[in-house]
Amino acid sequence: MQETHTIVVPDVSAEVRQQLLAFVLQLADTSLILAHRLSEWCGHGPILEQDLAMANISLDLLGEARSYYQYAAELEGRGRTEDDLAYLRSAVEYRNPLLVEQPNGDFAHTIVRQFLYDAFHYHLLLQLQAGPDQQLAAIAEKSVKEAAYHVKWSAEWIIRLGDGTDESRRRVEAAITALWRYSGELTTPSATEQALQQAGFVPDYAAIQQQIDEHVTRVFAEATLPVPQGVFMQKGGKTGRHSEHLGYLLAELQYLQRTYPGLTW
Amino acid sequence: MQETHTIVVPDVSAEVRQQLLAFVLQLADTSLILAHRLSEWCGHGPILEQDLAMANISLDLLGEARSYYQYAAELEGRGRTEDDLAYLRSAVEYRNPLLVEQPNGDFAHTIVRQFLYDAFHYHLLLQLQAGPDQQLAAIAEKSVKEAAYHVKWSAEWIIRLGDGTDESRRRVEAAITALWRYSGELTTPSATEQALQQAGFVPDYAAIQQQIDEHVTRVFAEATLPVPQGVFMQKGGKTGRHSEHLGYLLAELQYLQRTYPGLTW
Repeated sequence: MQETHTIVVPDVSAEVRQQLLAFVLQLADTSLILAHRLSEWCGHGPILEQDLAMANISLDLLGEARSYYQYAAELEGRGRTEDDLAYLRSAVEYRNPLLVEQPNGDFAHTIVRQFLYDAFHYHLLLQLQAGPDQQLAAIAEKSVKEAAYHVKWSAEWIIRLGDGTDESRRRVEAAITALWRYSGELTTPSATEQALQQAGFVPDYAAIQQQIDEHVTRVFAEATLPVPQGVFMQKGGKTGRHSEHLGYLLAELQYLQRTYPGLTW
Repeated sequence: MQETHTIVVPDVSAEVRQQLLAFVLQLADTSLILAHRLSEWCGHGPILEQDLAMANISLDLLGEARSYYQYAAELEGRGRTEDDLAYLRSAVEYRNPLLVEQPNGDFAHTIVRQFLYDAFHYHLLLQLQAGPDQQLAAIAEKSVKEAAYHVKWSAEWIIRLGDGTDESRRRVEAAITALWRYSGELTTPSATEQALQQAGFVPDYAAIQQQIDEHVTRVFAEATLPVPQGVFMQKGGKTGRHSEHLGYLLAELQYLQRTYPGLTW
């Protein structure tokens, strides 16, 4: 666990560096918050096999978050550590999209949230690993292998639930109705992301959206589930306007860090 | 995750088979309960690196628990599944030793609980992998590699805390004072374990205790910590007499299984 990294910061203007910092923190927060949500299932069942799968995915996301926070700390260059960034910011400073902070709900809700995020995550990482930022490319190259497994797992569950019993179908449809509205934010660029797209650091979200559409359409067809149309999309998380759920999550997430600051004893 | 196993049940009398079932459930419960305790830290910090380490250890233990529950279901042969055994028994039916159900407390408490357990777990698995029960030997062979890493990790933390600052030393000493009394149960054979020792299925705990003593003495010496002497040992968990902590833990652990029974929808 005591790897030494050389983190390469790109040679860009102070303004672009600030934008890159904001984007990397957004990636970090997104992975951390979803990892935390999944960890809420950890050791709780109801199925040991799926418990293990979710614990595995949570661990992958936590590892990915850590790599982003380390990079963010370097980009910021003000002496804050990965732990300060992960655990000691206020809710309005977190930049995760609304989707990942939504509560676990029942298993179908967890699966739908996961699949919608995994489809985006996988196609984003495919682009980032080929992008101009060395550090992001390195993190993406490692994480995309994990994300490929995640999206395979959640897609299989979408199919099992959608094409399963009346009850499982009812539940997965309810989850899609509840969560679809949060999927659009993932590929709607914030002002920061737009600036970074022009600078070449953030990929074309319209192209990624098209890949997601194809992916989701294929999986939903196999699940015999209709793809929702014309849903009004909610956004806000990427600009710090969160649902009340994040506050409760952070209260728990930050409790220990605030109780044992820095664990420097 | 859809491996097919052939679980080999040894050719023994019905009585020994019942004893073996009880022992395997004890191993399963022990791993499950400790995995759950560690998962309570998951995504909570205060240090991302250690958060990841604990999530990793939790995941290892959960995987190990699952293997034992599968074997227990086979030994029982009454149609109960691994999930029924893991999630649908009452507190008095759980057979984990008291040590692993103790609350996380501060980080020092978690580390001391972990090290005391890891030292036992590692030396137990070394014996089980060479034992006459094929299934237990196979699980132990896989798990001992993980346990070797766990005990290395927790020993390093004992040393860092013991030979650290005044505050870290004060905390690790307080944790040792609180938890040492639960270490003796691990190697005090229950009636079931005594019977299985005679049948050759459970290793000699006196020999294991000696290995643990050497291991702990070596680590404590490096940590400049005194090894407690003459402490009166608490026991009860292995025969179903648990502290009040297990009830709260199970309420949380079983909530989802009882809410979504079998997740058969």
